[in-house]
Amino acid sequence: MERAIIEGVMQLLEEGVPLAELSIERVARTAGVGKATIYRRWSGKEELFVDVVRAAEPPDPELPGTSMRDDLVVLLESLRRRGLATRSSVILHNVYAQMKSSPRIWAAYHASVIAPRRAIGMDVLRRGLRDGELRPDVDLELVNDMFVGPMLVRSVMRPDAELPEGLAEEIVDTVLAGLRPVSSTAP
Amino acid sequence: MERAIIEGVMQLLEEGVPLAELSIERVARTAGVGKATIYRRWSGKEELFVDVVRAAEPPDPELPGTSMRDDLVVLLESLRRRGLATRSSVILHNVYAQMKSSPRIWAAYHASVIAPRRAIGMDVLRRGLRDGELRPDVDLELVNDMFVGPMLVRSVMRPDAELPEGLAEEIVDTVLAGLRPVSSTAP
Repeated sequence: MERAIIEGVMQLLEEGVPLAELSIERVARTAGVGKATIYRRWSGKEELFVDVVRAAEPPDPELPGTSMRDDLVVLLESLRRRGLATRSSVILHNVYAQMKSSPRIWAAYHASVIAPRRAIGMDVLRRGLRDGELRPDVDLELVNDMFVGPMLVRSVMRPDAELPEGLAEEIVDTVLAGLRPVSSTAP
Repeated sequence: MERAIIEGVMQLLEEGVPLAELSIERVARTAGVGKATIYRRWSGKEELFVDVVRAAEPPDPELPGTSMRDDLVVLLESLRRRGLATRSSVILHNVYAQMKSSPRIWAAYHASVIAPRRAIGMDVLRRGLRDGELRPDVDLELVNDMFVGPMLVRSVMRPDAELPEGLAEEIVDTVLAGLRPVSSTAP
């Protein structure tokens, strides 16, 4: 039932129906269910829509837990895959664009998807700090942005940028090592 | 005359007129000029709109040219200031959101504003590479994303993130130095 409703929304999006015109009534009609059925599961259009996006996105990865470095590579690799999926999927592409122009839906997506993902990343960094994999003198929020920033810039803001295999490792290892020439003396 | 037209567009945006309804005709009426006057200066709505955004943004900075590191700090500081301006200016905020939902205007803005800015950053990095301020074994496009990524993530994608004074220096110096603990041996 849930699946039929989510697929109903996807079908409407594929047909080019803008988010603003995507009423619960229309979704119910497309999925062949009553409005009450939808409202039993979702409190409103925002919550339903967020679940549609999650169903269209690649699933969140399992972390190996072998080291901070390895976990970060897996987290960045999943950002890379989501970036590739968004480029190749017209639906996902439209969905993100429309979501960002609807503050309520964006807030719901942020609370239920982005914030938990960021929390996972912060946990990984805290473990890395504890295990001596990370300089102790840098703010962890900034550390997080230093790892995910380069991948997000490429996958979200620069649709023409390359997202080659191995990019996640390259970013993590280069951010860890720094960009100064090896011979140079640190200040 | 140009100024009056640009201010006419800003006035309409401030009144909450959506970009889609912002016709050259309406701009002409608001600015008290003929449509022909606008078309003499701009080939269309896209080009006019991009100039409106540039007029509302803080101006691009002058680079000191003393070192790659100093130039990067100035470039990132200007990203930080644009981020702060966007947060405090309802107009700029709406303008960016609407621009991103219009592929033609976004393409025009990208070609005339973002691409040249990125080219300036790449020039700075090439000089840094030549002057031995940068490891020679990392792709320069990735190097650029490593410096601007953390600032862009904060200023554009995380409207709740702090943009404190000194952040530009902190990012540049930390990306140069790397995140590995000093005592650790590099692989």
